[in-house]
Amino acid sequence: MLVSAEDIKNMDQKFRALFVNSLSGFKSANLVGTQDNNGTTNLSIVSSVFHIGASPPLMGMIHRPETERSGHTIQNIRETGEYTLNHVNSLIIKQAHQTSAKYPKETSEFDAVGLSLEWSEQTKAPFVEESHIQLGLELREINHLEINGTYLIIGEITEVRLVDGIVGKDGFVDIEKASSVVVSSLDSYHVTEALGRLSYAKPDKPVTVIR
Amino acid sequence: MLVSAEDIKNMDQKFRALFVNSLSGFKSANLVGTQDNNGTTNLSIVSSVFHIGASPPLMGMIHRPETERSGHTIQNIRETGEYTLNHVNSLIIKQAHQTSAKYPKETSEFDAVGLSLEWSEQTKAPFVEESHIQLGLELREINHLEINGTYLIIGEITEVRLVDGIVGKDGFVDIEKASSVVVSSLDSYHVTEALGRLSYAKPDKPVTVIR
Repeated sequence: MLVSAEDIKNMDQKFRALFVNSLSGFKSANLVGTQDNNGTTNLSIVSSVFHIGASPPLMGMIHRPETERSGHTIQNIRETGEYTLNHVNSLIIKQAHQTSAKYPKETSEFDAVGLSLEWSEQTKAPFVEESHIQLGLELREINHLEINGTYLIIGEITEVRLVDGIVGKDGFVDIEKASSVVVSSLDSYHVTEALGRLSYAKPDKPVTVIR
Repeated sequence: MLVSAEDIKNMDQKFRALFVNSLSGFKSANLVGTQDNNGTTNLSIVSSVFHIGASPPLMGMIHRPETERSGHTIQNIRETGEYTLNHVNSLIIKQAHQTSAKYPKETSEFDAVGLSLEWSEQTKAPFVEESHIQLGLELREINHLEINGTYLIIGEITEVRLVDGIVGKDGFVDIEKASSVVVSSLDSYHVTEALGRLSYAKPDKPVTVIR
């Protein structure tokens, strides 16, 4: 099946959103925890978090134009300079998805969807207690992508909070064991089954499953 | 288990790479197809492709600093202004992973790993015949991220080539049916199992599984 640029342009808006959002492949599922300077907390699901670098440990996240519904997250990140990322696991997909509803700013999505606030001494933003992999981040920069009005938010990881028993001797974190889920398109949730880890690739020898 | 910024900084480099690369969650797995102006083709696996917007249809990709091993991809994208993204599926994970080996520029990874070139009339870059979801893209911009020397490559989708039977009536593409895989950390490959699609979230009613 062939779909041209012209076909995409002519699609109904909702059809196009589901279609194009499918094309990058599977996406991570994270809940962004923030608060404003008055202490009102906010929680928002995002499927746009990605790795930028390990040293320093940097995460990127695409945020839609601020005039639309989900402006509270970026406002809070600007105000406090801090946020959390919490892996969505298979036990909380409905609550996580529900955070995408348009709640008024004075409503905390934690209360509205039934997820629990957890705090650390270090980070001025709330974690999700039900999440098995929680990251505290400090804002490093917000880049406005002129090409479509979205924002690239870059943060540095300042603390990592993990359930026990998922970090291997070589540093690999078994996020499948932590029940982290993946998203496809806008609304589909999936669990994973490991095919294996592959050996470091070298030109002169075939890769093998290492565990 | 708590891991501080200081702990991350003090990790052995390989340990840190596996650890931090696990933290964003699961990642998409794509093969980037390019060629230079002499027609030498290149193929490189990336786990950093992400959705930026549907209208226009934009994809982002993080590319490591150019001085390191994988400079051929970004050089070719600069030269020709075009590239392809091809979903890695469960049948080709070893060949796909093997493209990360350091081959000399005159070697095509297609030949070296045993994947097949496929061409379209429109795109000046090769597709991977074995892939079930193939995208042709035109380069829109390359942003140097000063914070760690990486590059954000943004392209616009100009054609989509899909196996039959995976696009739903509402535009949703069943990438699980297409056997697209996910990556965690640097070297772990996973297939998925759908939990379901969830309804559009509204403040006044709970989300439900729609199919």
